[in-house]
This record gives sequence, structure tokens and C-alpha cells, in this order.
Amino acid sequence: MFSVTIRDHMMVAHSLRGAVFGPAQRLHGATYVVDATFRSEALDADGIVVDIGRATEELHAVISVLSYRNLDDEPEFASINTTTEELARVVADRLVARVQAGALGEAARDLAGIAVTLRESHVAWATYERTL
Amino acid sequence: MFSVTIRDHMMVAHSLRGAVFGPAQRLHGATYVVDATFRSEALDADGIVVDIGRATEELHAVISVLSYRNLDDEPEFASINTTTEELARVVADRLVARVQAGALGEAARDLAGIAVTLRESHVAWATYERTL
Amino acid sequence: MFSVTIRDHMMVAHSLRGAVFGPAQRLHGATYVVDATFRSEALDADGIVVDIGRATEELHAVISVLSYRNLDDEPEFASINTTTEELARVVADRLVARVQAGALGEAARDLAGIAVTLRESHVAWATYERTL
Amino acid sequence: MFSVTIRDHMMVAHSLRGAVFGPAQRLHGATYVVDATFRSEALDADGIVVDIGRATEELHAVISVLSYRNLDDEPEFASINTTTEELARVVADRLVARVQAGALGEAARDLAGIAVTLRESHVAWATYERTL
Amino acid sequence: MFSVTIRDHMMVAHSLRGAVFGPAQRLHGATYVVDATFRSEALDADGIVVDIGRATEELHAVISVLSYRNLDDEPEFASINTTTEELARVVADRLVARVQAGALGEAARDLAGIAVTLRESHVAWATYERTL
Amino acid sequence: MFSVTIRDHMMVAHSLRGAVFGPAQRLHGATYVVDATFRSEALDADGIVVDIGRATEELHAVISVLSYRNLDDEPEFASINTTTEELARVVADRLVARVQAGALGEAARDLAGIAVTLRESHVAWATYERTL
Repeated sequence: MFSVTIRDHMMVAHSLRGAVFGPAQRLHGATYVVDATFRSEALDADGIVVDIGRATEELHAVISVLSYRNLDDEPEFASINTTTEELARVVADRLVARVQAGALGEAARDLAGIAVTLRESHVAWATYERTL
Repeated sequence: MFSVTIRDHMMVAHSLRGAVFGPAQRLHGATYVVDATFRSEALDADGIVVDIGRATEELHAVISVLSYRNLDDEPEFASINTTTEELARVVADRLVARVQAGALGEAARDLAGIAVTLRESHVAWATYERTL
Repeated sequence: MFSVTIRDHMMVAHSLRGAVFGPAQRLHGATYVVDATFRSEALDADGIVVDIGRATEELHAVISVLSYRNLDDEPEFASINTTTEELARVVADRLVARVQAGALGEAARDLAGIAVTLRESHVAWATYERTL
Repeated sequence: MFSVTIRDHMMVAHSLRGAVFGPAQRLHGATYVVDATFRSEALDADGIVVDIGRATEELHAVISVLSYRNLDDEPEFASINTTTEELARVVADRLVARVQAGALGEAARDLAGIAVTLRESHVAWATYERTL
Repeated sequence: MFSVTIRDHMMVAHSLRGAVFGPAQRLHGATYVVDATFRSEALDADGIVVDIGRATEELHAVISVLSYRNLDDEPEFASINTTTEELARVVADRLVARVQAGALGEAARDLAGIAVTLRESHVAWATYERTL
Repeated sequence: MFSVTIRDHMMVAHSLRGAVFGPAQRLHGATYVVDATFRSEALDADGIVVDIGRATEELHAVISVLSYRNLDDEPEFASINTTTEELARVVADRLVARVQAGALGEAARDLAGIAVTLRESHVAWATYERTL
């Protein structure tokens, strides 16, 4: 199995609902360093998993919609807590949708899976991975 | 699959038995930067894999028993080499025991797995992972 | 010259005023990984620059006042932009005040300087350093 | 499952064929920080996955053949693009051949798998992993 | 003293002349992770050292001229070895020229200094710093 | 000013004397990731601060004397606490002695300074720097 990973980041404000979150129930913020991994059983004719340039653009497009925002104000997140885990899933699912729409080319439709890791600090991070 | 990872560290003295270890057969020491990963197929009602605050406390409790000690003096390790691999297993197994005893709450009993990585330097690390 | 550095982190929401900040004029957030450096020309009788345990506690106390907050709501910051540079200065100045009040012990009053670096992502950070 | 990872690096010149590579079609170069992971279901009698000293020597031997070279001049690569993905496979396959030839000892012939990650920058890396 | 640092990278081929360089006398390559630091005694009216967006663009422009090239073919480097130290100086001097031409705005002309670090691997890097 | 930094590591056991050290008064251990920085106002005729190959060998020779040992058993350290700060000084002073003895060549005798950083964990490190 092959994989390629690219890194970018986003900066958001949000609050979390539930006593389990302690002080993070207050409005605060986070930088998420985002690692997106694309997995494939085989390489294409160029010897790559995906076009890293296009993958970088697509990842940046996905996280630009979220970055420099207060996620508490986004209607799409009204029904969930925007935890690191949930945001990893959101980024991964949106990348998958773009891949399936052909944004990374025809070959990328055969990707085996995608994983997204969001690093919220030097001591904590979360990953969501799914098959395709 | 979701996962959450937290990082802490411990500092121990020890020696290793066997010609394969060369100079590490002498009493020496190591800082292990410890990454504990909790895996789950689904998020709980709060949108998390585990309560990261409690997980951090439990990991710290597990490694505090080992840290600032000479592992050669600990009877529990008399029959094994305290290699990075073995210590990763010890930390993971003790975390699993705490999870199964309910220390991370009822939902955490459904965790899919736990992995522990011990980084002994900038050029070497070991991981032990097990299902739950 | 000797120095000792310790690392912690804080997570805040804020917005920045001024066209130069582009999308960061919106309410967003950041994780700041905080490195506090204590400099001294000489070591004390124990062979250290500062008691790293106390220094860690003092740094944590200083940034806990800021963390998990929306800095736009803090009256103390009403007249400034809470840029990475300004926040580095705030943390450094508060650490200096604690040192001068004796929080790190008598010897620490002779520190040569303090520097604080705030890392806002994997590609950007700011430092403020001052003599004592 | 246990694993042990060691890190080394190599520095090469090369060019890539295909419009997808944009400016990387020109002769340029890269430092690859190489992480080689050895996986095993069980530890040997010494409590290790592999002798980390020998593993380090074998990895270094494998990448020394490639390092400080222009890969465009190496006949063995005439028919492929030396992408990060392909080079990860080359390094992994050569490590596997050495393991199977006994270079890491008899026990290492029972390894479950090997993975090689090549980090080409702070924002991009590729992995190839295979079972044994 | 304040400083702001931004990170980017470039990938080049080159060879080095002189027995001291051993195998690096052959044509090979490197990824340089480039950290550019801007120092200032005071912050401007916006509370910043430099506009980090413009600084990022200027750094990228400077290193794009070098990246994805074989430096042995560049007439401007015919008389020097393109060591990590020399390349750090080249990048720093070109950033200074842009600052002095006003590319980072009027306030940036008062910068106290610029430093550039080129990381060629996980175990070696070089810095050139100069006052302004 | 130019500088070149190289990284290596050492693994030691030791204990620290004094109530300030809390649990670190017990025999324990540490991995120190060692960064040695060589500073020079000018580059030599080859375009370098020091021969990085020889510098790497000299640093390795200096720390090999300390690594895989219990520093409590070394007579040379009987009168001091082997804190991170003190060990940084020991490594720096021994590097300076080698430089002054010509181990890095004639040009290296003109170095402006040497700094040594010992990273004891992901959250703490110490530096000792001196002019030459």
C-alpha cells in the first residue's frame, strides 16, 4: 500500500457544549495543523498516488471554507460539537467528495482511502480515516 | 475509524541484558516521549473518542509509576528486558486495564484499540498496538 | 550564557483590527505553543538556571489566564491588537513580574533575560525577548 | 502488533517526466528523511522486534547507494519516475531483500511487514508498506 | 526585541567543489526548509513586526527563483560553492534588498535585522543573520 | 554572522542532589538530543563555517564518552549536579577544546562561538553558549 500526505493549517474559533469539555465550553480557538493522507494500492502511470499539486489545492480549498471563522456561527455545525474528531471527519468527507467528483483526476477515483489528522497542539491530535 | 492521541513523557534508568545491546548493557537512561492513541469506530454523544482530560490524567498516572526510577530495581521487570518495545506494551496494557475498569467512562469500554509509541530519540521509536 | 526553555500551550479566540490582517479580521482562533526561555550568566548552587518545576507552574499560571477565552472580550486588550507579537510580549512581561516578585526564588531575580516564542502554526511564530 | 522505526536521510538530484510535475520536470533535488518501520506480532527472546543497531546499518547501506547521486544517471531507474512514492518502494523492497537474506538475523525473517516513509519537506511525505 | 519567523522550502540540485565535501562533490540535491526571521525593536501601529502575508509572498518569490533548479547551471553561482551557509546568505541578502525597496512597506525599512535558516536534514542546518 | 548546527543524541542515567529536584533525586535517566552550533563571522575558502563531517565526528566523540553510562559513577562529575545546563556546558567546553587543538582544522580556530543545546524532552531543553 502506498500513501501520500500533505500538510496545511486552519485557524478557527469555537466553543464546545458539554460538561466534559470544562473550560473549552467557553468561546476559544485553535490552530489545526491538517495532515491529509491519500492511500492507494498501486501507483498511476506517472508513478504517483495523486497529483500532489492538485491535492494541495483541494485540501486548501476545503479548509479555507472553515479557516478564520467562528464555527459557532456556521449553521452547518449547529447540531454537532466541532471537536477535533468531528472536524477531522468533516475535512476527510469533503476531500472524498472532491475526489469522487474528479477534482484529483480519473485515477484518484481508485484511491483506497483517505485519512485526515488535525493537530491541535504539540500534545494532542485526532485522526479520521475511511476507505473509498 | 477515529483516533485521538495525547503526548507525555517519562525519564528512566535501566540496563539491557544480551550481547545484542552492546553499550546499552551498561546502566544508562532514556527519555521516552509517550504517545497514547485511542481508537474508536464511532464518536460518543459529545462528539469525542474519549474525554481527553481524563485520558491525559490516566496516561500520566500510568507513566508516573515508571518515571524517575531505575527500572533495574523494579521487581515487576526482573524477568524481562525493559526495551522500548516492552515498555510500550506495559504502558498500553496498563491503559487498557484502566479503560476496562471504567476510568475513562462507560463509552470508552467500546474503544476499538489502543496504541502506544515510545520515542527514545529523534531517530528511533517503538509502537505497541492492540485491539480491545 | 545559559538558558532553559519550557513549552506549554494556550488556545484562544480573537479578531484583529486593520486591513493588513485580511480574513483574520474576522473572529477566529489559534493554538499558541508557548516556549519560555530563562537566561542567566551563571548557574546557582544546584547547577540550574531556574527550578524548572516552578518555572513550569508559573508559565502555566500566566497562560491559563488567557487560554480558553475570547480575547476580544478582555478589557485589558481593548486598546491593542492581540497579535502573536503582542501576546508574546504579554506573556514575557507577566513572567518577568512573577520573577521579580520572587515566584521563582531569590536566585532567579538575577536572571539576565527572558524570551517568549508563540508558535501559531507549523509555518509561523513570533518571539519577544527582553533583558532583566 | 509491535513495530520499531529508525530514521536516516539521503540527498539526491533527479527530474520527473510528465506534465503533472510542473517545474519538477527540471533537474532539481531533494533531501528525503527516511523512516523505516519493522513490524512483528511478537518480540524475540531479547524483547525486541529487530536489533536496532543492525537495522540502522542495513538502512544506511540501502540509502547510501542512492545518496549524493543524480538518479537520472542511474540505469536502474531509466524506466520509472523517481517519485517519492517509487523511492519509498525501492528502499522498502531492498530492506526486505536484506531481511530475507538474513542480514537482520534469523528472527527477523518472521517480521510481519516493513514500511518506509520518505519526507521530502515539512509539508509532504510518502509511505510504502508491505507485508512479509 | 521582537521577531517574526515564517517557513517555506525549496528543492535544488547542485554539486560542491573541494575534497572537504567528499561524496557531495557529485551532483546531488537537497530540500532546504527555509525559516526567515524579521527582527524589530518595536511593533508598528497594527501591533506587528511585518505583514506576515506580504513577508510570506516575498520569501516565496525569493526562493522560487532557486527552487526546482540545478544550481550548477546558474551563472550567478559560478564563482561560489552553493553550500547551505552560502545559500542562507543569498536568501537573506535578497530579502533585505526587497525590504529596502519597500516590498514589505515603509515600516519594514526600520527592521533591526534579518536571519535565514536553511534546514538540509533532520540533523543539520545553517543560519545567516545580519543587521539592517 | 553565520552558524552551522548538527544534531546527535546521548542516553545517560544519573540522579540529582537537592530538594529542588523532587523525584529526580532518585536514580533515573534521560535521552539528550544534542544540537551543537558553530558560529563564524565569515566563511572559509570552501564556503563553509566548519567541515560538517569532521564536526559531526567530533561531536559524536565528545558525547560517546558520556552516553550509555551512569553519570553518578563518573569521578569527574562527583562535585557537580549533572543537570541539563551543566551537561550542555561540559559538551560545549569539550568541543571548544577540540576546536582549539585543531580537530576541525586551522580555519575553525577562528570560530566566533559555540552553543550546545540539550533537549531532555518535547517540553524542556537547556543551552550553553560561549564565545571563542
